[in-house]
Amino acid sequence: MLRSHTCGELRKEHLNNEVKLSGWVQRIRDKGGLIWIDLRDRYGITQLLLEEGESDQSLIETARSLGREFVIQAEGLVIERESKNPNMATGDIEIKLTALSVLNASKTPPFTIENNTDGGEELRMKYRYLDLRREPLRNNLKLRNRLSIETRKYLDSIDFFEIETPYLIKSTPEGARDFVVPSRMSEGQFYALPQSPQTFKQLLMVAGYDRYYQLVKCFRDEDLRADRQPEFTQIDCEMAFVEQDDVLNTFEGLVRYLFKTVKDIDIPSLPHMTYADAMKLYGSDKPDLRFGMSFVELNDVTKNKGFKIFDEAELVVGINAEGCATYSRKQLDKLTDFVRRPQIGAKGMVYVKCNEDGSFKSSVDKFYNQEDLAAWAEKMNAKAGDLLLVLSGDADAVRKQLNELRLEMGNQLELRNPDVFVPLWVVDFPLLEWDEDSERYHAMHHPFTSPKAEDIGLLDSKPGEVRANAYDLVINGVEIGGGSIRIHDRDLQKLMFKHLGFTDEEAQEQFGFLMNAFEFGAPPHGGIALGFDRLVALFGGQDSIRDFIAFPKNNAGRDVMIDSPSAIDHAQLDELRLKVVKPTEQIS
Amino acid sequence: MLRSHTCGELRKEHLNNEVKLSGWVQRIRDKGGLIWIDLRDRYGITQLLLEEGESDQSLIETARSLGREFVIQAEGLVIERESKNPNMATGDIEIKLTALSVLNASKTPPFTIENNTDGGEELRMKYRYLDLRREPLRNNLKLRNRLSIETRKYLDSIDFFEIETPYLIKSTPEGARDFVVPSRMSEGQFYALPQSPQTFKQLLMVAGYDRYYQLVKCFRDEDLRADRQPEFTQIDCEMAFVEQDDVLNTFEGLVRYLFKTVKDIDIPSLPHMTYADAMKLYGSDKPDLRFGMSFVELNDVTKNKGFKIFDEAELVVGINAEGCATYSRKQLDKLTDFVRRPQIGAKGMVYVKCNEDGSFKSSVDKFYNQEDLAAWAEKMNAKAGDLLLVLSGDADAVRKQLNELRLEMGNQLELRNPDVFVPLWVVDFPLLEWDEDSERYHAMHHPFTSPKAEDIGLLDSKPGEVRANAYDLVINGVEIGGGSIRIHDRDLQKLMFKHLGFTDEEAQEQFGFLMNAFEFGAPPHGGIALGFDRLVALFGGQDSIRDFIAFPKNNAGRDVMIDSPSAIDHAQLDELRLKVVKPTEQIS
Repeated sequence: MLRSHTCGELRKEHLNNEVKLSGWVQRIRDKGGLIWIDLRDRYGITQLLLEEGESDQSLIETARSLGREFVIQAEGLVIERESKNPNMATGDIEIKLTALSVLNASKTPPFTIENNTDGGEELRMKYRYLDLRREPLRNNLKLRNRLSIETRKYLDSIDFFEIETPYLIKSTPEGARDFVVPSRMSEGQFYALPQSPQTFKQLLMVAGYDRYYQLVKCFRDEDLRADRQPEFTQIDCEMAFVEQDDVLNTFEGLVRYLFKTVKDIDIPSLPHMTYADAMKLYGSDKPDLRFGMSFVELNDVTKNKGFKIFDEAELVVGINAEGCATYSRKQLDKLTDFVRRPQIGAKGMVYVKCNEDGSFKSSVDKFYNQEDLAAWAEKMNAKAGDLLLVLSGDADAVRKQLNELRLEMGNQLELRNPDVFVPLWVVDFPLLEWDEDSERYHAMHHPFTSPKAEDIGLLDSKPGEVRANAYDLVINGVEIGGGSIRIHDRDLQKLMFKHLGFTDEEAQEQFGFLMNAFEFGAPPHGGIALGFDRLVALFGGQDSIRDFIAFPKNNAGRDVMIDSPSAIDHAQLDELRLKVVKPTEQIS
Repeated sequence: MLRSHTCGELRKEHLNNEVKLSGWVQRIRDKGGLIWIDLRDRYGITQLLLEEGESDQSLIETARSLGREFVIQAEGLVIERESKNPNMATGDIEIKLTALSVLNASKTPPFTIENNTDGGEELRMKYRYLDLRREPLRNNLKLRNRLSIETRKYLDSIDFFEIETPYLIKSTPEGARDFVVPSRMSEGQFYALPQSPQTFKQLLMVAGYDRYYQLVKCFRDEDLRADRQPEFTQIDCEMAFVEQDDVLNTFEGLVRYLFKTVKDIDIPSLPHMTYADAMKLYGSDKPDLRFGMSFVELNDVTKNKGFKIFDEAELVVGINAEGCATYSRKQLDKLTDFVRRPQIGAKGMVYVKCNEDGSFKSSVDKFYNQEDLAAWAEKMNAKAGDLLLVLSGDADAVRKQLNELRLEMGNQLELRNPDVFVPLWVVDFPLLEWDEDSERYHAMHHPFTSPKAEDIGLLDSKPGEVRANAYDLVINGVEIGGGSIRIHDRDLQKLMFKHLGFTDEEAQEQFGFLMNAFEFGAPPHGGIALGFDRLVALFGGQDSIRDFIAFPKNNAGRDVMIDSPSAIDHAQLDELRLKVVKPTEQIS
């Protein structure tokens, strides 16, 4: 090894040891008589010392030739620091150098390698290997490693096998768009990269593996919204001989274990909330339960008082922003502007201030007297000092709008503390959702999700009302994962495909292998997939996943560091018997 | 859960417990008055019992309706067996049934789910989910899971971080053929799937991550020889601030840990053998050291005795097959036929029997008298009863031929016991090898491998003689992995690319990001990649990797279970702006 110790290792007990360190020059302070070098590696920073007159002159010259990020090897004696630094693990000691050599020089980096860098996004992506040197990113990848280790430890301890499923699989039109891989040996044919190992993990249940998991890369060729990646990592799991609560309990165990082990946080038992309740109370299937402010429906106390907007609305619904009666006109106008933004789309907002003296002041005083408003306040459990914010319109739309307003109020009132974690299960999702574009029902989760037995009868008459044995894990308003109890019966699976608009031939061609497998003793089974990138970011207290991935793509799906994707040789295309068609040409 | 216990769990201490089990019907024995059902799951087999007259008649009818591989749920009382089965973990007990239901029926499987199945290769691949139910495959995947867990445990314990590198990277013409992935967002451009995360792990060293590993899928679009897979798994590792011996010692530690933990075998310290010695003594860069029979060069005792074939040969070289002087004429003829097979290509074989009476009998008695042959025997450390087998020809060719003969003799003499493991390091590989097809030197390992400092001077004059800081881990004649100390200096990397026939522009276009990174403080570093599929197969005592992979491809690169690769929609091709060109059409 080119070192005897790392840069994070030396303590008082090493005093008078001869040591050899290697690392990067973080900083040099040259005070004339004394030169200090902060030497950095993954493990920490150690201070090196040279003294004019005492140290060999050639060492001093070498030291003065160093620049930031030079890679050096240093030998010397561990001595006690005159002025200790209690903020550094190695702050009690420094190394009085006896040898110093440059292992590799460095050009001046295009941005500073500091916790708060001066580098812009583009530059940091291009020189990702330099950005990764910064402590915040190092801590993110360290956290990611820790979470993967602990996830595996937990699942292994409860008899899950990690089994690798293939990456070169088969393209299916259902779901998001596949990345495809042309086959050279089978001309004109293509593999697809998996959007998830869904069918394979189900086949592993058919094969009797009982408990499967895998930390696995998945791929989706989608137009990238901010903070989506074309390749992402899942904790993918499946269990046989289970019912919904068995899966929920098992993965509640994992979630609580991870919080305890990695963050020393005790998470209480996870509440279960139905999809219907989540939509009704929070206007979202991923409610942020770090704060209350749940929706209160006000139709019975707002209608028929002459306020046309409310009278014509399908739903009048509000939230109680506690203690906000002091909001100024300006603050209230800003909230109105917020809900009117095109992304949110409300027409307006009604407020009621619950004054300290027991009176009310509202934006609809013309239509509602003090008694009317007192009835609102009572329904909303408001007390003096609270502020009621009320929206109205079509039920689905207004709930979504009020969800945005509630989250905004949570932000304004600092109720969304990234150090607080409130997970829950959202259950009883609808099986199907109507797609306006294709004018047919799509599987809300995926086509392998089982309907609730008691709802199967509705499949023909009211398909939109059929509930699924499907569930999401939601933490702090973020969907961390989801899963379902699967169909294990061939006939039911065929029926599902029929309802999703597959012909028998299409179903057989694309998923025949799975339906055939169901004829050879498929056990009841179910599972879940957790978004690992998202989970790590959540543990790291951040919204964006990008800095929790070593080498992410940008929003155009490009790796700007290696400049990929890129053109390939004609010879390569010839071997694949493919031709790239220019935008001006006709393809088929 | 649809069970209270697994089928591998119940023991005498559970007697008189009411239990609920779920699993597959392995076997039914109906003796009229008594019916036994063997119920199987991943954990074991438990015997269920029904008694005519005692058990409910409806249960008996259900039991008689069952077939092999039906999935059932059974409830009953744990009782002591009359005739115990000491070969089964659950052999002391059986379950007297009080309830029995069919969770899913099964058609008769196309082959038997037994340790020795009657299914042929094709059928077993098509119904892989049934083949995976067989105990040998289950044990293989269990072993694989165990080895991955222990590998991670060990590397984690010595400060390696697992860091995920991207799967959508950039195609480079160097090395094997890439699988490519057309980009929809960047028309006419392609990602490539990684043949290995080589450049990314080097960038992680530049980024200061110090110790990286990853169990990672890699991809090569090669014409598949038997037992190659287009996607395979590597234990991929890299370390900074190391020299060759640091890497070897670290991974020797891993190898010994895995053998100890997983197989309870103590492996002594691994020998290091130079590539030159391996070729000279075993004719192979992956010698099987479970047995001796190393090569003895015989030029000085065989030349100039009138035997033209030896006189004209560059090298006469032999092995001593101890105790084989009793080989019959027929056995010796078969050995001659063996070395003459076109795949091996020897012109003939000379033998010398060392008779018990001290005399010699050879196939070249016409040219060599007893004294001559005694000199051979002495040189080869032969004693009475041994058999000397001698080949001749061009040195490189004859060594390869004798390697095949040595391995064949190892097989015949049963010296290649799959329960014995002899690992070694082969070191000092040549940096470059001449490629006849392209008439230029190729990197033997890869272009990032560093030449030995003392040999750099030979790069221009004798490129074929430059040795690399490259090493292979070899166990039982199988190359389990290889690695090298990398180049970390931009100028040396440029020089290497020049010697490999890259223009400056090509080098910059394909690997510019790496050479640029070397300018910003790249530390000395090196690493290794171990073939995980191969390692698991070796631990499992088998040659073929296929049954250690859950869902392998066949030799044509097809997954016959899901029928992939397959044609994709025109719409998909249109979005990618690609056209498949028929064999009769011109491409460009």
